[in-house]
Amino acid sequence: MTRLVIIGGSDAGISAALRAREIDEQAEVTVVVADAFPNYSICGLPFYVSGETPEWQMLAHRTREELEATGMTLLLNHTARSIDPAAHTVLVSDPDGQDQMLAYDRLILATGAVPRRPTFATQDLPGVFLLHSMAESFAVHASLQKRDPRSALIIGGGYIGLEMADALTLRGIAVTVVEHGSSVLKTVDAPFGTRVGNELRQHGVEVVTGVAVERILREDEGLQVSGSPDFQATTDMVLVATGVQPSTKLAATAGVQLGVQGAIRVNRLMETNVPDLLAAGDCVETAHRLFPHHTYLPLGTTAHKQGRVAGERALGGRRPFEGSLGTQVVKVCDLVIARTGLRDHEAREAGFDPLTMETSTWDHKVYYPGAQPLFLRLTGDRQSGRLLGAQVLGSWHSEIAKRVDILATALFHEMTIEALSDLDLSYTPPLSSPWDPVQIAAQTWIHQRPRTHP
Amino acid sequence: MTRLVIIGGSDAGISAALRAREIDEQAEVTVVVADAFPNYSICGLPFYVSGETPEWQMLAHRTREELEATGMTLLLNHTARSIDPAAHTVLVSDPDGQDQMLAYDRLILATGAVPRRPTFATQDLPGVFLLHSMAESFAVHASLQKRDPRSALIIGGGYIGLEMADALTLRGIAVTVVEHGSSVLKTVDAPFGTRVGNELRQHGVEVVTGVAVERILREDEGLQVSGSPDFQATTDMVLVATGVQPSTKLAATAGVQLGVQGAIRVNRLMETNVPDLLAAGDCVETAHRLFPHHTYLPLGTTAHKQGRVAGERALGGRRPFEGSLGTQVVKVCDLVIARTGLRDHEAREAGFDPLTMETSTWDHKVYYPGAQPLFLRLTGDRQSGRLLGAQVLGSWHSEIAKRVDILATALFHEMTIEALSDLDLSYTPPLSSPWDPVQIAAQTWIHQRPRTHP
Repeated sequence: MTRLVIIGGSDAGISAALRAREIDEQAEVTVVVADAFPNYSICGLPFYVSGETPEWQMLAHRTREELEATGMTLLLNHTARSIDPAAHTVLVSDPDGQDQMLAYDRLILATGAVPRRPTFATQDLPGVFLLHSMAESFAVHASLQKRDPRSALIIGGGYIGLEMADALTLRGIAVTVVEHGSSVLKTVDAPFGTRVGNELRQHGVEVVTGVAVERILREDEGLQVSGSPDFQATTDMVLVATGVQPSTKLAATAGVQLGVQGAIRVNRLMETNVPDLLAAGDCVETAHRLFPHHTYLPLGTTAHKQGRVAGERALGGRRPFEGSLGTQVVKVCDLVIARTGLRDHEAREAGFDPLTMETSTWDHKVYYPGAQPLFLRLTGDRQSGRLLGAQVLGSWHSEIAKRVDILATALFHEMTIEALSDLDLSYTPPLSSPWDPVQIAAQTWIHQRPRTHP
Repeated sequence: MTRLVIIGGSDAGISAALRAREIDEQAEVTVVVADAFPNYSICGLPFYVSGETPEWQMLAHRTREELEATGMTLLLNHTARSIDPAAHTVLVSDPDGQDQMLAYDRLILATGAVPRRPTFATQDLPGVFLLHSMAESFAVHASLQKRDPRSALIIGGGYIGLEMADALTLRGIAVTVVEHGSSVLKTVDAPFGTRVGNELRQHGVEVVTGVAVERILREDEGLQVSGSPDFQATTDMVLVATGVQPSTKLAATAGVQLGVQGAIRVNRLMETNVPDLLAAGDCVETAHRLFPHHTYLPLGTTAHKQGRVAGERALGGRRPFEGSLGTQVVKVCDLVIARTGLRDHEAREAGFDPLTMETSTWDHKVYYPGAQPLFLRLTGDRQSGRLLGAQVLGSWHSEIAKRVDILATALFHEMTIEALSDLDLSYTPPLSSPWDPVQIAAQTWIHQRPRTHP
């Protein structure tokens, strides 16, 4: 009977616990959860803020009762303080501050990530929020209801920043997004970032790019945000969304080795350097199928997969994590933007000789009502013709997310771009064309690629 | 300079011509088109009938001018009468009935399919239509506008029959569908067929199953349709949609060997048994990636691929047709139904030991507004765990078509069902869940599969 202790009750931790209980009904699985909200969907927080998800309780992937019905033990509002790997114990504080020692045969760290706190936000100011946890979301929500802000300024034009811009606009708040880079959504190429910026502007959001915020001051008339070059704004509320970093303080107490961007170093079985100590989710570095080295890519999908692998490994299984492709998608107003694999500069960094080409087409046959333009950027290796990555942008109902998944599945199998035309993809005029847009983009790439031989 | 003659101006023929001109600007490409409508989207006809596509001209994938701009020659309203393979000539009649001889180096037959004419419809009756060609669609359209029928009866509950039921209902006509089988849409399993039938009923369509139509008579009060057991109906209009058969009369004049269901026998380079004579599209049998033998599977997507292969082969290329998975999708009212690969009985026939399981889930996180139920039926091999086929049913905007394409891509690479969980698929709450429904279905299949070993 294995005693498995898991620190962290979000995606990776709960996935590990569920998998362990699924494999072995005898396993004694204890999950130490720092707050009262196990298995909550962090990705859903913007929709709670927007009001689209009216009750925060709805954000739970599973209720506490459903989790406990699987036979796992949840220690809510418990804080893990230190690990003694030699003794195989974890020191845990309960909600009253009482310490207790948990003994384990296997321990899984699923401590997640914490928001990166920029230098201009080192001290807490009323009205300034770093959105990540449930608690922080409650604070934002309460502030929206109590103070009824007219304006908000969001620092950071990444996924969370843009989803929050969308969310607050839906609430009737005048939103400004300030992004350091030359276009928002730096996870995709600039032409796509520019389209996303324009989509936000069409929905009334002020989008400021190329500005580094340097200072936030509380003045009588509101929060004064200044940056360079030459940026000044007064606003009722500031959300800081400048990314996250792995939460690894606890790991350090056990002598766990860290890797990329300070994330816990793991192998594909989610093992750390410390015996019987595994780790998964936003606190670990991630194997990538196209990079020779690990990366830091905190994503919910990856956390679920890694948690599952860790839960299985903890009970003696050896099914490895097969690696990430960095597949991701975000909805911003009525646009959806998705990517998988490598972009041009990443592919170069990974040792390929990449070529990226953009194709625009329709999401379905234009004779059927409602056809919308769809933009695909394919990155392939010039020499081998191998598909390396894809970015897709289009309308909400243009099946963008699952189109990128066709490409993610192709990437998983190391297909060439040419071979994409061999895939037997579905077609009906309201939903596609006889060659799916994915294949039209592939044929464009092949046709326009400079020929090295006749 | 290769003289390439292509008989047929629909999907396969035009794809072949485009590919040939793309590869070799010197190639002399002549396409013999029986009517005045080259490169028309047959799949779009229901939407022209419904009025969603207001002008029939919109159904052209490309205009005549666009096609000719690629350098191909179109002989419209020309009928190919016979082939002399020894002399490498085709006898063609022009619109005035004048014969001419076309010499070829390579000939591609892309003569398509014709509707199967059931015994109860051997003689033409006013108000009874066999929908397939542009001409027939014009006749239906004209009849709708001139006679303003109040009721229509559709014989056959397959793709075309159901799309036409949807189309005529949109025009305010009272539609009855009569299907021989026990549920409509026999290309998917009965539980899905039943859901599709109910969807039609909810939109006011009368759906009659288990009835074989035996007779259509023209009476004063309208068309009298009778069948067994015990079926009688009077209607203003009858559409017969009982499937198609390959059009191979011309092929017979050249001594071309036929195969499955009378379709032209071809290899994966789309070569027939006659030298320099290729064939592609709805007139040929189709290599299937999961069946050891060829099948007859006339689909627009396949016709495009085969045409491309034939066009390339005609100019000396050797890129083969990689085989079909029978991937297909249809929209019926607000439902979308898609499939790829084999169903249970087909898998058994192909020598597998199949198990099919249905999973129901949501198309996206239920806390985000508008979540719709989504049904997946996965078929896998009990012994090897290999994925063999998938059927997906759900709402129009639930990305059903491209979800089945993820599975089609997985099938192409002979993945196991277990390995589907390793795919890095995209997730955002408005569009999916951290494990995509495809993966949830895979995990259900794995978990419920009877274990042969502990």
